[in-house]
Amino acid sequence: MPDPRMPDFRLRCPPCGRSESADSRSSRCPECDGSWLIEYLFPAAESPARAPGIPQIPRLPGLFRYLPMLPVRDVAAIVSLGEGGTPLLRAARLGARLGVGSLTLKDEARNPTGSFKDRMLAVGIARARELSHHTVAVQSSGNVGASAAAYAAAAGLSAKIFVPRTVPQGKLVQIAMYGADLVRVDHPSPAFIFELLLWASQELGWYIVSTTARYNPFVLEGAKTIVYELAEQTSFVLPDWLIAPVGGGGNLGLLWRALLELRALGLVQRLPRLAGVQAAGCAPFVAAVREGRSVQQAGTQAWPQIDTVAGAIADDLVFDAHVALPAIRDSGGTAVAVPDQETLEMQRALAADEGLFVEPASAVALAGLRRLRQEGTIEEGASVCCLLTGNGLKDVATAAASLPDVPLVAPTRAAIAARVRAR
Amino acid sequence: MPDPRMPDFRLRCPPCGRSESADSRSSRCPECDGSWLIEYLFPAAESPARAPGIPQIPRLPGLFRYLPMLPVRDVAAIVSLGEGGTPLLRAARLGARLGVGSLTLKDEARNPTGSFKDRMLAVGIARARELSHHTVAVQSSGNVGASAAAYAAAAGLSAKIFVPRTVPQGKLVQIAMYGADLVRVDHPSPAFIFELLLWASQELGWYIVSTTARYNPFVLEGAKTIVYELAEQTSFVLPDWLIAPVGGGGNLGLLWRALLELRALGLVQRLPRLAGVQAAGCAPFVAAVREGRSVQQAGTQAWPQIDTVAGAIADDLVFDAHVALPAIRDSGGTAVAVPDQETLEMQRALAADEGLFVEPASAVALAGLRRLRQEGTIEEGASVCCLLTGNGLKDVATAAASLPDVPLVAPTRAAIAARVRAR
Repeated sequence: MPDPRMPDFRLRCPPCGRSESADSRSSRCPECDGSWLIEYLFPAAESPARAPGIPQIPRLPGLFRYLPMLPVRDVAAIVSLGEGGTPLLRAARLGARLGVGSLTLKDEARNPTGSFKDRMLAVGIARARELSHHTVAVQSSGNVGASAAAYAAAAGLSAKIFVPRTVPQGKLVQIAMYGADLVRVDHPSPAFIFELLLWASQELGWYIVSTTARYNPFVLEGAKTIVYELAEQTSFVLPDWLIAPVGGGGNLGLLWRALLELRALGLVQRLPRLAGVQAAGCAPFVAAVREGRSVQQAGTQAWPQIDTVAGAIADDLVFDAHVALPAIRDSGGTAVAVPDQETLEMQRALAADEGLFVEPASAVALAGLRRLRQEGTIEEGASVCCLLTGNGLKDVATAAASLPDVPLVAPTRAAIAARVRAR
Repeated sequence: MPDPRMPDFRLRCPPCGRSESADSRSSRCPECDGSWLIEYLFPAAESPARAPGIPQIPRLPGLFRYLPMLPVRDVAAIVSLGEGGTPLLRAARLGARLGVGSLTLKDEARNPTGSFKDRMLAVGIARARELSHHTVAVQSSGNVGASAAAYAAAAGLSAKIFVPRTVPQGKLVQIAMYGADLVRVDHPSPAFIFELLLWASQELGWYIVSTTARYNPFVLEGAKTIVYELAEQTSFVLPDWLIAPVGGGGNLGLLWRALLELRALGLVQRLPRLAGVQAAGCAPFVAAVREGRSVQQAGTQAWPQIDTVAGAIADDLVFDAHVALPAIRDSGGTAVAVPDQETLEMQRALAADEGLFVEPASAVALAGLRRLRQEGTIEEGASVCCLLTGNGLKDVATAAASLPDVPLVAPTRAAIAARVRAR
């Protein structure tokens, strides 16, 4: 008899209705080329009112304790670096400054390679092993690449990481250290580089583990565990708003799906609204939401010229419009774009007020909160949780550019005294 | 009636026997200038055989769940960034390569600012608040400085961080982002800079929160929580050896004290041996252990010239010889020095074999393990735990120096094909 806690799921193509079993090796629907949706057949779903908590197997490492909610069925395929389990921190000073009732920060910078992408790649690499792939491949501005490289290394797989020429030094070195094969493409566009990756992967049989539901429906499922943890950390009383930085949009879709799962299990009643934030210098998703574009339009109209310090979310295409736009709509949420100057201000505020050094792409969530408060979209006194997606140490140069130089002081009492009294 | 779970302790000066209450503001013994030892009066100590586990208060954040074992009595003084709770990872591939029976890695790079120093400064800043200090100060090669700056920021205190001219860019930027006052002294010697800090602190009334038991007996107590977690993660069956990088030596002393506490509580029988590892280019502690120097000699004879990539442990003085030397002796342990080349090899191996990117000062623990296996000090089949103390992203330049350049590839199918097939 199968363990009732092990996940059972199938792939379904919403456009044409086709479905395939969990063992399917197709990354997209062979009938209509649609993107797969993963449908779980939860044991607990039969009696939702009686679910005692989020289905889990506590002895499994990292986020795999939520295995019953993830598309991995072979425990032997799991490679964990202890991802997830990140703290939910109360930011009293910053919250008061932004005029919200309570501000909490989910510190995803604490993941193994320093970003929330580790949750996705932990699942993606496990799936790659279940399907017996030997080489995985991603296109990345750095964070997905580091996660893919680290988990591939730990699993003994080869990794091909395609990065744009703009990738920061910290991320480049990190990926190279994990022993991955780095392909640094002399081009700034993620959408363009993705086409090259797709072509190369088809030619050479690489398994794409990018965090876009459009090309791999499994990887992104790892993002759901952020919501599971948030629910447990708040004793199932979720905040009014959940604010996330947005690149290709897939994370929003999976955060929302996790919220719907918790409601279906009878564990939460009221769900947060979702707000997606992008940098004004690369905001195709915000444009799609605010101008009411269709999924089709949003998924194909590339942003013309990327110009932002928030490189980790500078996707010029809304790869996952098919899940991201419904998430905003169904949650009664919104999207907002923020200028780099406000992002850098909030990066400083997070460090100096709360002791958290995050990369610019994380600080956009706070800059977005400030804008949404100013607009009146988020009401005074609301409870808000922002996702901090990546570690500031991954892009030291951008932070350094906004700081004054630190002069050398002569090693004498007189020089020290003059220096510290001058401040 | 006082909460029996709250810590009760006093300060005792082992050299002269003087003791003071927990409220004492003296950082050293006013009688003989000796270093204080913190003595706990554990409630559980009355009936050690019946301790149900490590005394704790689970609802407190981060490492403060172990409050009954820490020298902080006012819960309102606590500032937590969710430090501690780091994963213990099994390194099967690397363990087999080094010929040990089981190799586990305590991944301290996962702390809030990326190093194990966060555990110490969480305690140090809480103590500073209990004593109503407004300005804290440390001397640091970068990690302690980042921790002090982050926790001071979160607590609303001012921080003065004295760093040597050699501090890596990542650590410098991180400390500056937290809003600390950085004093970058044009000198390479921690011992020398410490003297300047001591002088300035006395002149200006700063509270020193350095992680040396010699100058602040409270801060280092946070290191004990590494052992508490290790004990819980191993179900109280500890490894044969615990290997740690060593700077001023205090961490070894506190790891050992925590082990003795667990034995006194009746929670563990057999304790691990401790091995301390330093870089060959700055190894005063190893010299002291291997040449049988006295505490007095070790604590005063500075290493003449620092020459190593492992800057985070390049203390030219064994500041805490009074606790570190007894820890090695009493545990039946040892100390070993490793050349930088072996450290960099193990840094690569940790990343490429296990998916963990740590700074050189962490990799020395593995390089030390390799040496101790070669010497025969650690027997084949032994169970070993190494502490990985800091994140590789804190010093990207050192890692980059050991990697080949990543060339740009033209954004065409032909160029990509030529590039990936060449590998």
